[in-house]
Amino acid sequence: MSETPYQALTVETLPLRLGAHLSERLGSPPESWRVREVGDGNLNLVFIVEGRQGGVIVKQALPYVRLVGDAWPLPLKRSFFEYHALTRQAARDPGRVPAVYHFDEAQALTIMEYLTPHRILRRDLEAGVKHEGLADQLGNFCARTLFRGSDLSMKTAERKADVALFADNVALCDITETLVFTDPYYSAPLNRHTSPQLDGIVAQLRADVDLKVAAQQLKLKYCNHAETLLHGDLHTGSIMAHEGEARVIDPEFASYGPFGFDVGMLIANFLMAYFAQSGYERRPGERDDFRAWTLDVAEGVWDRFRAEFAHLWRTERKGILFPAALYEDQGHALAAEQALAALMQDIWIDAMGFAGVEMHRRILGLAHIAEFEHIENEDARASCEAKALRLGRHLAVNRARLLGFADVRAAALRLEREGIA
Amino acid sequence: MSETPYQALTVETLPLRLGAHLSERLGSPPESWRVREVGDGNLNLVFIVEGRQGGVIVKQALPYVRLVGDAWPLPLKRSFFEYHALTRQAARDPGRVPAVYHFDEAQALTIMEYLTPHRILRRDLEAGVKHEGLADQLGNFCARTLFRGSDLSMKTAERKADVALFADNVALCDITETLVFTDPYYSAPLNRHTSPQLDGIVAQLRADVDLKVAAQQLKLKYCNHAETLLHGDLHTGSIMAHEGEARVIDPEFASYGPFGFDVGMLIANFLMAYFAQSGYERRPGERDDFRAWTLDVAEGVWDRFRAEFAHLWRTERKGILFPAALYEDQGHALAAEQALAALMQDIWIDAMGFAGVEMHRRILGLAHIAEFEHIENEDARASCEAKALRLGRHLAVNRARLLGFADVRAAALRLEREGIA
Repeated sequence: MSETPYQALTVETLPLRLGAHLSERLGSPPESWRVREVGDGNLNLVFIVEGRQGGVIVKQALPYVRLVGDAWPLPLKRSFFEYHALTRQAARDPGRVPAVYHFDEAQALTIMEYLTPHRILRRDLEAGVKHEGLADQLGNFCARTLFRGSDLSMKTAERKADVALFADNVALCDITETLVFTDPYYSAPLNRHTSPQLDGIVAQLRADVDLKVAAQQLKLKYCNHAETLLHGDLHTGSIMAHEGEARVIDPEFASYGPFGFDVGMLIANFLMAYFAQSGYERRPGERDDFRAWTLDVAEGVWDRFRAEFAHLWRTERKGILFPAALYEDQGHALAAEQALAALMQDIWIDAMGFAGVEMHRRILGLAHIAEFEHIENEDARASCEAKALRLGRHLAVNRARLLGFADVRAAALRLEREGIA
Repeated sequence: MSETPYQALTVETLPLRLGAHLSERLGSPPESWRVREVGDGNLNLVFIVEGRQGGVIVKQALPYVRLVGDAWPLPLKRSFFEYHALTRQAARDPGRVPAVYHFDEAQALTIMEYLTPHRILRRDLEAGVKHEGLADQLGNFCARTLFRGSDLSMKTAERKADVALFADNVALCDITETLVFTDPYYSAPLNRHTSPQLDGIVAQLRADVDLKVAAQQLKLKYCNHAETLLHGDLHTGSIMAHEGEARVIDPEFASYGPFGFDVGMLIANFLMAYFAQSGYERRPGERDDFRAWTLDVAEGVWDRFRAEFAHLWRTERKGILFPAALYEDQGHALAAEQALAALMQDIWIDAMGFAGVEMHRRILGLAHIAEFEHIENEDARASCEAKALRLGRHLAVNRARLLGFADVRAAALRLEREGIA
């Protein structure tokens, strides 16, 4: 198939084109397979293919941004980066990403594990469905992939070759660079927000010098600080969950970047889910328990990330940075602890900054989130969004002044209780 | 010639092998050329070739570290990185690096401008010879190459491709990673220092937890923070000077790294020259004037770097970071100034850190500097070196507490006046 020029799959052509790769796994004949196109993301075709013996996911990149159309071309090579990210993540945190069965670079196509009956986590955050163990699994995923993808762990020649490989993921980095860090902070053409309700606060944020400086300082880190291989788009729409099992999908935005990016973006999405709950309450307080849980998950992700990262630091620090030769081997174990504390503080500060801009771009930019979008009453939606905007500004600007998650929690609780006046 | 397998040139074979490239520039016949091998660096062959009409430099990489021998192999590809760095530097600060006439990748060989009667600056720092305009030229070189090699200026797709290209300069980065940031801080096999005079202070430094943490924090920045294309080895042995003209050579250590690296390393070398002067005084005070000049140059490099970087920020900021669309175009010019002030503070802090470790590795590590090495009296040499070690520790550990060069100057003057007690 790889000799054939790229052609987008359809429900009709898929069985014939991929039969050879799928027959053994799904059971023959291909004509008996059930094929559904279910891509609800912004970029790709996603097919569920089921036969008598089992099912698979077939994900194929389109040569443009699905959300926008062919006016916004996007390189097919993103599927190459997704494939390479999936294999690395699978090695670094086994079982947390879907297994890859086949990759075809020319067709920009990956056949992978069908996670069922898992649901996109974001839908459950909207519906008010909890998942046991979520924070621990996601915190561990961040710690393991970020630690093991860095010069704290890898052979540096391998890491440098990997930096070169992922440096070509220019188009998807550009999306993040533009849509996350810049567009929300001025009236860029692709922006939209709940209007007129949010017009006032939006004008305030776009006149907020401290915020606009912070956003670009964070952009510099995202663009230049190649500390580790990021997932690059780790929001709650990139997570599937079912009965105590969370799986992380869709790493096509993978690039080398700062330790704090993925974990900060993830925390932001739980904070937004927190503020979205009141939009779904038929009576006041109905979602109190679930609302509290979203905040607990945000805190739990950070706590587990921190604990697991520290564990790996103490047991797997075999890269060129902070070598035991200088510390433990010289009887200076506390030098290693001092360095860890300083690095963790830097990661925390960055994570809070990235959390802040993520909250802004999901309300002011091009790509919004379902939890807010599905609140039909626009005043109610704007009220939820305004709180998230306020907290985002607080986190981004004051990121170096927050001593721990308790400070974030206190700010979130206060906004939720008092509104934004 | 590029079909021929690599073969090191000799004084005897050079005219025949390079005749076709040189005849027009030097004048025929090749047999009449004067060829001298003058490489006094640590890594390469360097020939001066002179004919009736002119002269050129022929620089060829050897497949090992010249300073150590063939027990330490080193990829020939470093000449490729040097060539690419030279062409970029020439575009970013015209006239400051030698013109390249020919590059042969297979032979790891560059034919370039013969700078004459320029001398290696380090020799003049030992001999007590001043150069007019030095600080301005070097400060501008740092500002222009570092600003214009970053996402503040470049198209980011080009910068990312360039990051990928230079990411393969693994072997030379490894030298810096190991010899600058790690080896000096424990008893690594390649280390040496003036002994027994410095044994006490060396033991202190290697037990200094704050210092050892700082050194690795700076290493993380060097390894991971791909902010701009560095020269990578910008010490006073990589600068040639003559009557008001300084030229920068030897960028084979070029890699993407933090803004503060080159400028910090350069300042460190002037600070070391400052402390070396007493080793050459036949009577106390003989070098007072020159000693004061070395400190003025160190300060001048920083001042000019800062001023030129700010000028470029205000006039050439056309990259994806801190775009005018967010600031000036919104009537928020002071947001751009706020962001510049914060970035310049970060660069200053990093530069002081890199200056500190550079001073240590030149006294404790493998590659020492002539100004100290040529002080024949070992007690006198150790006295000079000890002051530099103390200042290096002060800068590396307190880098975020130094408000400006006045603080560095005060510390240097006090060490020079009071000794290290």
